[in-house]
Amino acid sequence: MQASKVSVDELQVMADRCPFNAWLGLRIVSVGKGELTLTATWRDEMQGAPERRLIHGGVLASIIDAAGDYAVATMLGHASPTVDLRVDYHRIANYGPITARARVVKLGRSVSTADASLFDKDNRLIASGRGVYLTSQSTLEG
Amino acid sequence: MQASKVSVDELQVMADRCPFNAWLGLRIVSVGKGELTLTATWRDEMQGAPERRLIHGGVLASIIDAAGDYAVATMLGHASPTVDLRVDYHRIANYGPITARARVVKLGRSVSTADASLFDKDNRLIASGRGVYLTSQSTLEG
Amino acid sequence: MQASKVSVDELQVMADRCPFNAWLGLRIVSVGKGELTLTATWRDEMQGAPERRLIHGGVLASIIDAAGDYAVATMLGHASPTVDLRVDYHRIANYGPITARARVVKLGRSVSTADASLFDKDNRLIASGRGVYLTSQSTLEG
Amino acid sequence: MQASKVSVDELQVMADRCPFNAWLGLRIVSVGKGELTLTATWRDEMQGAPERRLIHGGVLASIIDAAGDYAVATMLGHASPTVDLRVDYHRIANYGPITARARVVKLGRSVSTADASLFDKDNRLIASGRGVYLTSQSTLEG
Repeated sequence: MQASKVSVDELQVMADRCPFNAWLGLRIVSVGKGELTLTATWRDEMQGAPERRLIHGGVLASIIDAAGDYAVATMLGHASPTVDLRVDYHRIANYGPITARARVVKLGRSVSTADASLFDKDNRLIASGRGVYLTSQSTLEG
Repeated sequence: MQASKVSVDELQVMADRCPFNAWLGLRIVSVGKGELTLTATWRDEMQGAPERRLIHGGVLASIIDAAGDYAVATMLGHASPTVDLRVDYHRIANYGPITARARVVKLGRSVSTADASLFDKDNRLIASGRGVYLTSQSTLEG
Repeated sequence: MQASKVSVDELQVMADRCPFNAWLGLRIVSVGKGELTLTATWRDEMQGAPERRLIHGGVLASIIDAAGDYAVATMLGHASPTVDLRVDYHRIANYGPITARARVVKLGRSVSTADASLFDKDNRLIASGRGVYLTSQSTLEG
Repeated sequence: MQASKVSVDELQVMADRCPFNAWLGLRIVSVGKGELTLTATWRDEMQGAPERRLIHGGVLASIIDAAGDYAVATMLGHASPTVDLRVDYHRIANYGPITARARVVKLGRSVSTADASLFDKDNRLIASGRGVYLTSQSTLEG
């Protein structure tokens, strides 16, 4: 695995400085060039249904967005605005921490694409998705 | 606008019983058959960047997921599991409440599709997206 | 409906000059600012199944891509590279011409988003989707 | 690689019987359980621009749809209706045959998900995407 432009500690500082990523309890586990593993910490407010301890799909989407963005950051050194995000829900996500594994599919001059897969505490694939990030100097504003 | 199978009050009870939707501060504003307007309440933990008071993309994705699901519920009478979710980010979302307008594109026997658009407090379109919901009796489990 | 930057005839010339759009038999029906209607002509090679005269999903995806791109062209005056494309299949598409109605959701400095809906000869919604187009001067190359 | 439920020859018969897949010149190269490689044959009508010999994005979307569907078929023994399709365009696709590599991400009771990546004759990644397929006994009709 080649060297990332940012260390685990530097990405952790980035995540901690983002209020919602801090709320998700993101912990950066490992980084490589275009690759990243992070975990999110269970909190009761993350639940999507009261009678079953399962995680809301929006929380899973948020973790995929963050993991993809930070995977791109391992190649660029900084976070980028999300252009679009797609999430597929594969299984019900039970109570417990979530592990995200993300990798860059294509680093482009204008936009970059990263995939992320989410695993529950029993290492079952619960969701996967893709983010497209704006990596040119332009902004999203029209 | 034809009659919804669930009232504003019934959908509000549904939203309040879902811990993460309650955290998002969802308020059901109006419903019709296949149509719904709701708002989400600003909280500081929703921010995606510390130096600017903008909303995290994952929070916007969560609101789109919930609004689409409840739009389908106006036709079915109950919420449905999300199969997949897609979100496009159009503008930076500034500090303040978010309004979501959702409508059912297709109610199907197996899956149903709903679009949602998000507007900030100045009524600018900040994000839009689509959810696909499993509306057969089957479950996501394989 | 405000004025398009390109006329029906100019867009038709664009479509005719693109070999695959010509193969699809695209006919530009009407244009407005950010809005467009076009039709595709049935050909037997478009079928997705031999025993039923239904249209292949890839052909429908192609029509959505073209309609969205030309909707953006009504605001920019030229076609743009597609960043990503998403298509939902709502009903089986029977034998016959397809009508596409497209509109720009957001014209942005970097990327632009357009929705398109496809209708069969009986005016039933058979598919709908969204394209994201690169509207900055940058290219897709990395 | 575990055994596929269909052989290369059986999938080739399936592809040949589908008029549009036949038009795309699909050749099944290899199959495994949940895995598949196929190629598409260049034809001049596939071009998206007259002045440069590049392939239309809709043709690439069609190949991704077919490759994902046949990857699912290696586990089920038959093709399935597409629920939705998403395609990201990474690089301009030059003149020449396209190779698709597809794999099943999740085989589910209701819906199944497969990823596909497309490579040009120089083995550069030009597009990638995902299809969701209806694998219950239900149909798309509402």
